[in-house]
Amino acid sequence: MEPTHIEHIGIAVKSLDDAIPFYEDVLGLKCYSIEEVKDQKVKTAFFKVGQTKIELLESTDPEGPVAKFIDKRGQGIHHMAFSVSGIKEKLERAEEKGVRLIDSKPRKGAEGLDIAFLHPKSTFGVLTELCEDKTK
Amino acid sequence: MEPTHIEHIGIAVKSLDDAIPFYEDVLGLKCYSIEEVKDQKVKTAFFKVGQTKIELLESTDPEGPVAKFIDKRGQGIHHMAFSVSGIKEKLERAEEKGVRLIDSKPRKGAEGLDIAFLHPKSTFGVLTELCEDKTK
Repeated sequence: MEPTHIEHIGIAVKSLDDAIPFYEDVLGLKCYSIEEVKDQKVKTAFFKVGQTKIELLESTDPEGPVAKFIDKRGQGIHHMAFSVSGIKEKLERAEEKGVRLIDSKPRKGAEGLDIAFLHPKSTFGVLTELCEDKTK
Repeated sequence: MEPTHIEHIGIAVKSLDDAIPFYEDVLGLKCYSIEEVKDQKVKTAFFKVGQTKIELLESTDPEGPVAKFIDKRGQGIHHMAFSVSGIKEKLERAEEKGVRLIDSKPRKGAEGLDIAFLHPKSTFGVLTELCEDKTK
């Protein structure tokens, strides 16, 4: 089964307070939630545009993955997540095809989704996330 | 009016031939078109996932914008495009809010869309494109 849509796009920013007004006042989107995700060491602001969420990510720790990303590459798009069904089989297929996995098994992510990341070294520079909503 | 969806995500790759099999065989998407866009000095491979297109961009010129992007930042997501209505008014509003515009007026892009880019210095590192389909 092919992915059904882009579930979200994660964007690393230095400051949510600075970046939210661009998405609200310039683009006309509405921030509907701000949430801290402790194990990822980020504070996240969510916007919805059609089928896709925009997730702005501000690091809460200078040693966290988003802080390190910004140190190395600057602010910008951090990852892209595809909504799939059969995430376990998708991961197995990726591994068979020689793709390096960050998560060899799905784990629980935000909003109760099953998620797993593929390594950008195997995905042409794009940190790629697979998400499955088992409640659907 | 808020944007209706993510129209496309542009991804800079060194080689379409190398990258297409990842999107087809691993993710399960289907490349439905390959097109050369001469004025952007790229060859583009298109995939559709829900409302959004994935556009892989391979430079046809070592001095082109995509080649320069890869030299500086490596392969990865190059830009993100929002589908909007009233693109002219959106650009005027962006300018009023102090956003630096790459295109101060809409121009014709791929597939006959009216498009304009906002400068990543003003958009927290994300090269942001606005697109309007005037035929709709």
